[in-house]
Amino acid sequence: MAELEFWFDFASPYAYLAAETIGPAAVEAGVAVRWKPFLLGPIFQEQGWRDSPFNLFPAKGRYFWRDLQRETRRLGVPWQRPARFPFNSVLATKTATWIEPDERLPAYCQALFRAGFAERRDPATPTVVSACLRAAGLDDGPLERALAEDGGQRLRADINRARELDIFGAPSFVVKGELYWGNERLAAALERAWVD
Amino acid sequence: MAELEFWFDFASPYAYLAAETIGPAAVEAGVAVRWKPFLLGPIFQEQGWRDSPFNLFPAKGRYFWRDLQRETRRLGVPWQRPARFPFNSVLATKTATWIEPDERLPAYCQALFRAGFAERRDPATPTVVSACLRAAGLDDGPLERALAEDGGQRLRADINRARELDIFGAPSFVVKGELYWGNERLAAALERAWVD
Repeated sequence: MAELEFWFDFASPYAYLAAETIGPAAVEAGVAVRWKPFLLGPIFQEQGWRDSPFNLFPAKGRYFWRDLQRETRRLGVPWQRPARFPFNSVLATKTATWIEPDERLPAYCQALFRAGFAERRDPATPTVVSACLRAAGLDDGPLERALAEDGGQRLRADINRARELDIFGAPSFVVKGELYWGNERLAAALERAWVD
Repeated sequence: MAELEFWFDFASPYAYLAAETIGPAAVEAGVAVRWKPFLLGPIFQEQGWRDSPFNLFPAKGRYFWRDLQRETRRLGVPWQRPARFPFNSVLATKTATWIEPDERLPAYCQALFRAGFAERRDPATPTVVSACLRAAGLDDGPLERALAEDGGQRLRADINRARELDIFGAPSFVVKGELYWGNERLAAALERAWVD
């Protein structure tokens, strides 16, 4: 079956839009999606950004929030602008690295995204991460491993892989080594999955 | 008739895509387009950028050129990556401020864009600007005025207007004070033009 990698940071509102819409689009295209949570922070820092671009560039930030309001309404996606932004996605992402990449990983990711962008809960807290694991039919094992580990080696490997793929933002889609950035390129990425 | 403003810098490759596709889309939607060339440079500088984001952020830049190659092919738009980028768009934009905003302004803008992104000519030179005026059925009057003027007051007024509209990139579309950024939002902007 044709495959597509979906790379995202849990703190990216546009990746939340992708998480809410990629499932049906991929089923219709007959493409299997591999969910790849990682951290954009280290990559942003390498390009000189010490905060989210939403906060660094005021006019752009104002526009993004307005655009997200319009787009979530258009797509019928639940939405509440977070009270604080960005939230820290390290714990949630470390936890994800300890979940087997079967159907429960997408369920966990979707629950986490909704907590942050539709329910005004703080995805940085163990309580919320734990609730999202349960919503996906999982126990606290992955969270406990994430809290216990020192280095976050799996997470670091994922960030390095994102860097190798030249990923600089989210959502990003990778098909056969080819990079597509942003929800507006999902259709082209899905199409590419079927081209030899 | 419903109206939409199309704001762009001649040095923006994505604005070139918009210039090549906006005409038929607007006719189909029954919306009149007002072409608004301006300079992004001063606005980029205010957010701390002293070069094009294509050059400031290497991974993003590599991606944009690849994406433009894919998108121009998909849309059937002529394309040759410029040898030097970005080119200086001051003279071309000053010249545009001296053209009456009738159908010859879009024709001049399209010729200018094609020179830069399909024909590997340098739109910063008076020779190319002059050729683009002629392609639009105009004489060198606007170019001569642009070369003779000291301050570029019309241009400065346009840049200030862009700032007031919170424009931070190109292409931008403005409908009833509402801002839409990027080719992917053109459909939504055209739809908005008809909503009360």
